Amino acid sequence: MDNHDIAIALTRDSAPDLDSVLGMKFPCLDDGFVRVIDYLGSDSSIVQAARISYGAGTRAVHEDRGLIRYLLRHRHTTPFEMCEIKLHVRVPMDTWRQWIRHRTANVNEYSTRYSVAIDAAQRTGADEWRLQSAANRQGSSGTIDRETGTVLSQREIQLQHLAREVYDERLKLGVSREQARKDLPLSTYTEAYWKVDLWNLMHFLQVRMDTHAQAEIREYAGIIGHEIVAKWVPIAWQAFLDYHFNGLHLSSGEVAVVASLLTGDFVGARKQAAQMGWLDVNPDSNQLRRNRERDEFLEKLADRFSFPVNWLSE
Amino acid sequence: MDNHDIAIALTRDSAPDLDSVLGMKFPCLDDGFVRVIDYLGSDSSIVQAARISYGAGTRAVHEDRGLIRYLLRHRHTTPFEMCEIKLHVRVPMDTWRQWIRHRTANVNEYSTRYSVAIDAAQRTGADEWRLQSAANRQGSSGTIDRETGTVLSQREIQLQHLAREVYDERLKLGVSREQARKDLPLSTYTEAYWKVDLWNLMHFLQVRMDTHAQAEIREYAGIIGHEIVAKWVPIAWQAFLDYHFNGLHLSSGEVAVVASLLTGDFVGARKQAAQMGWLDVNPDSNQLRRNRERDEFLEKLADRFSFPVNWLSE
Amino acid sequence: MDNHDIAIALTRDSAPDLDSVLGMKFPCLDDGFVRVIDYLGSDSSIVQAARISYGAGTRAVHEDRGLIRYLLRHRHTTPFEMCEIKLHVRVPMDTWRQWIRHRTANVNEYSTRYSVAIDAAQRTGADEWRLQSAANRQGSSGTIDRETGTVLSQREIQLQHLAREVYDERLKLGVSREQARKDLPLSTYTEAYWKVDLWNLMHFLQVRMDTHAQAEIREYAGIIGHEIVAKWVPIAWQAFLDYHFNGLHLSSGEVAVVASLLTGDFVGARKQAAQMGWLDVNPDSNQLRRNRERDEFLEKLADRFSFPVNWLSE
Amino acid sequence: MDNHDIAIALTRDSAPDLDSVLGMKFPCLDDGFVRVIDYLGSDSSIVQAARISYGAGTRAVHEDRGLIRYLLRHRHTTPFEMCEIKLHVRVPMDTWRQWIRHRTANVNEYSTRYSVAIDAAQRTGADEWRLQSAANRQGSSGTIDRETGTVLSQREIQLQHLAREVYDERLKLGVSREQARKDLPLSTYTEAYWKVDLWNLMHFLQVRMDTHAQAEIREYAGIIGHEIVAKWVPIAWQAFLDYHFNGLHLSSGEVAVVASLLTGDFVGARKQAAQMGWLDVNPDSNQLRRNRERDEFLEKLADRFSFPVNWLSE
Repeated sequence: MDNHDIAIALTRDSAPDLDSVLGMKFPCLDDGFVRVIDYLGSDSSIVQAARISYGAGTRAVHEDRGLIRYLLRHRHTTPFEMCEIKLHVRVPMDTWRQWIRHRTANVNEYSTRYSVAIDAAQRTGADEWRLQSAANRQGSSGTIDRETGTVLSQREIQLQHLAREVYDERLKLGVSREQARKDLPLSTYTEAYWKVDLWNLMHFLQVRMDTHAQAEIREYAGIIGHEIVAKWVPIAWQAFLDYHFNGLHLSSGEVAVVASLLTGDFVGARKQAAQMGWLDVNPDSNQLRRNRERDEFLEKLADRFSFPVNWLSE
Repeated sequence: MDNHDIAIALTRDSAPDLDSVLGMKFPCLDDGFVRVIDYLGSDSSIVQAARISYGAGTRAVHEDRGLIRYLLRHRHTTPFEMCEIKLHVRVPMDTWRQWIRHRTANVNEYSTRYSVAIDAAQRTGADEWRLQSAANRQGSSGTIDRETGTVLSQREIQLQHLAREVYDERLKLGVSREQARKDLPLSTYTEAYWKVDLWNLMHFLQVRMDTHAQAEIREYAGIIGHEIVAKWVPIAWQAFLDYHFNGLHLSSGEVAVVASLLTGDFVGARKQAAQMGWLDVNPDSNQLRRNRERDEFLEKLADRFSFPVNWLSE
Repeated sequence: MDNHDIAIALTRDSAPDLDSVLGMKFPCLDDGFVRVIDYLGSDSSIVQAARISYGAGTRAVHEDRGLIRYLLRHRHTTPFEMCEIKLHVRVPMDTWRQWIRHRTANVNEYSTRYSVAIDAAQRTGADEWRLQSAANRQGSSGTIDRETGTVLSQREIQLQHLAREVYDERLKLGVSREQARKDLPLSTYTEAYWKVDLWNLMHFLQVRMDTHAQAEIREYAGIIGHEIVAKWVPIAWQAFLDYHFNGLHLSSGEVAVVASLLTGDFVGARKQAAQMGWLDVNPDSNQLRRNRERDEFLEKLADRFSFPVNWLSE
Repeated sequence: MDNHDIAIALTRDSAPDLDSVLGMKFPCLDDGFVRVIDYLGSDSSIVQAARISYGAGTRAVHEDRGLIRYLLRHRHTTPFEMCEIKLHVRVPMDTWRQWIRHRTANVNEYSTRYSVAIDAAQRTGADEWRLQSAANRQGSSGTIDRETGTVLSQREIQLQHLAREVYDERLKLGVSREQARKDLPLSTYTEAYWKVDLWNLMHFLQVRMDTHAQAEIREYAGIIGHEIVAKWVPIAWQAFLDYHFNGLHLSSGEVAVVASLLTGDFVGARKQAAQMGWLDVNPDSNQLRRNRERDEFLEKLADRFSFPVNWLSE
């Protein structure tokens, strides 16, 4: 923190692996892409920013990897905000509607008021139609048979053709672009520059790489994560996977149940569960009442701890 | 700022004129609306917040109206941020795409992943088709003749019908809602709760009530301003109109030209204009070069100051 | 979602338990306080906001408590952002420096440019001097003996007196308030209006009620949580305690170890731990290398799961 | 917008003039500084971002300078947000308290919980003590005589010495750093990394380079503007000076008065003024009532338009 070295020349921080793909289009969906335009910072800038907080004294104590992992584990967000990336994306408007809900980012989108709309709409292949999930009201599960899928895809083409025909017709008759676009299908591609700091990007990836995210945006998020962030800040990326993306959150009640299970105390575990109302029985059916939190916990036990439990039979 | 009155009972601030329209739908476009769900604060909370900054001493000096106008004139934004409003809006997705770009707000939108899309799309009447503006690449100007408009409206209905037919077909065949929606037209209505503080709302209104805003969002903004904000914080609303919305911004060069014009010094005004490159002549045509800033200034002079100037002839 | 009931009169949402303490000062530290000025929304507005997303159809399925807990568990943040609260706080500038780092809030602070600084500085009692923690570089642990504490408190009074004397002297000699304040101690009280939405407030409480937070801000956070939020949105508050504040986060590696421990597979657990480098031995000392992540995990096991493990001896 | 050139190699945008001062400390106050750590983008990235909005077609129409000036003039903020800069600053805590109020920025500050406080406090020279302004309650005007100033500076040193002595004493007796710091004077230096996008930086400069800003932060803002931003984005910087910093805002009423004055219609101007209440007379004194808005307008006329007006005598 001495103040006497007036002229320390600096060179800009860079991430050589990311430099090697700068500007390159990573294809997404049938006609979309993601490409990196520019960035600011790297793994070492995270460390550097943390050290302004901790002072020079820490330089010897931590090595970079350990420090980055510590910061992420404890959600010390500010050093990650010191990195910034600017992407150029091409994405269907339907997907963009979800994307744009992440507010802490800077955006320049292609203007269909100013210019003619991009002449491309996302097409769905005959075997890509996903069935409504029964379990999850806002999800899908499995795909529709190819035969039905073929019909659906043909109808889609018919609709997209008509929509573009009507759009072109309007422009030809002199209708303003801002109004002509009003009936374009949500599948129409748009393009944007999207600039975001690393912390907010990791939050985006946490939500959008998740299995509950819609397949389309999940494809973009996966590419941004695995192809871009992994090259940009490899240490932070690994820490993100270990602590956040593949981590697990337990409520206080779930902790109590696991604590009992660890010592094999199933009676204690049931007692805890009962206190939370997980074992309430419907007197009519003599079955456990539906309880979403219990069901989610049983899923965690089975899927993440490989420790399936049958509450009724024990 | 004394600290001894431990128990000052407070009652919540309210705006009686706004209370009288709480929950009421103000219709917009053919099937949209805006309604107020709740709010926090009023004109007097702006004053109260300013006084925490200035201390008790100012209570005698300013009266409320003067203080609010002073704060707004000098862009002291924080007291205005102390007021918050929550609206329920029904709006075509195309308009919503513009709306959502205002990031400093809280949003809950109707989910077409979770629920079937609202069965309504914004229709354009035969005499509502706007012509592309020649002067402004992102605007419209005038309307299309009724005959052509009738054809355009029929085609719109045809397209919207097919789009809904295809959507319903997909749902019937079991396609997930999240995917079935992908080709809905942008004109499809959506609904949302939108919560925003007064300062950011005034910024929204400044941009979206402007004559350059697209007609559709301008209709919503006008209603929010004139029907809602005017009832909620009447003093702040009037100040907003006087200082911001109907105010005028001049660049340093424009100030210099106006200064010369005020004393009738046309030679000086021309000299200033020349220095800024406004009088550069195209040697081929012997006409003034196109200069957007000069043209905008001439517009200000003519439209706002009623003082048209002909640069060449003087 | 029908659009025909043009005139649904609404009354504003209120939280009666919070109304009963509106304006009341909850004392903090020796001369600080927190009081509620106003608020927007309640538990039922969280539900209402969620339902705009999910559509009317869900009304029968969930009851409010279950829905709020579900939303919080899954970090669906937007319905919580639909609630807003405005507090009036009196707090030492030192504490305020930490407070203000939470950026997503609206603030009006008492201005010592405009008014004479509040004539009160936070005093530390003879038995309130906290020792530097050896384990945690940014924490404290235990208190200093009363005798030494008495000396420290006397010196504090001496310093605070001189600081105020010098401040008053400057004002008397005509020095501007903006400059006279420059050497006020950080312990000087300031006041502010602070307005924040419920989601961001819960984040503030998560960080500032934590045992790692500094005692002073922790006192404020505790009061805001237990005395204010608990009265305002009791269901959301309980969910916050259960899922966030008293919840536990495990990394993917920690999950793997716990999974092994659940089945009594200590060999597997050690293998997992070894893969993460937790069992690396320092050849010189023949002891385990220092590993912060392992130590934190052992703490979780012992403190949260009551399942202490000794890695070396097994 | 064609999508076929999968592999366009990009090199990162740079600003050579800024590169030449990267890391260099620009001294501020007696012991502070500002230095650039890194940045993203340049004048040409503003253009590039605007063009994603406008489409490829515009490339021929505008040249860069004209486009940047157009964007700034019309407050099209998003292309400016596409540039980002990261500064390292050393600044008294008193100044930092004002700085940090700009919320849309990323910050890592030196932690006095974690490390011993920087052993430097801002000193005021004998001829640097500013007098309280009579006209502006939150400003200063002129300086105190050197003799008095000498006494004030001596007292300052005495206070700062005692404060540090007490601080060191506490640390020596084992008091935790987080508590020991509580009585440090606000003049104590702190350091921080501060990262901000160009639009928000220009807003910071607009407010903090202003003559109403406190001298200390104005010194920092001036250096950031004239030494850093001017080198980084010279075209945007000039546009900022022309349109924002040296621009002038007129209310609708002021526009009406100027319009009358332009045609020499003093009767009309007085009529406009009277309608706004600017000419209300106090019956007791037979003088014009105090009216802040009128006084501010007269200042604009005199200072910016060199057109002083005496309302009473005409």
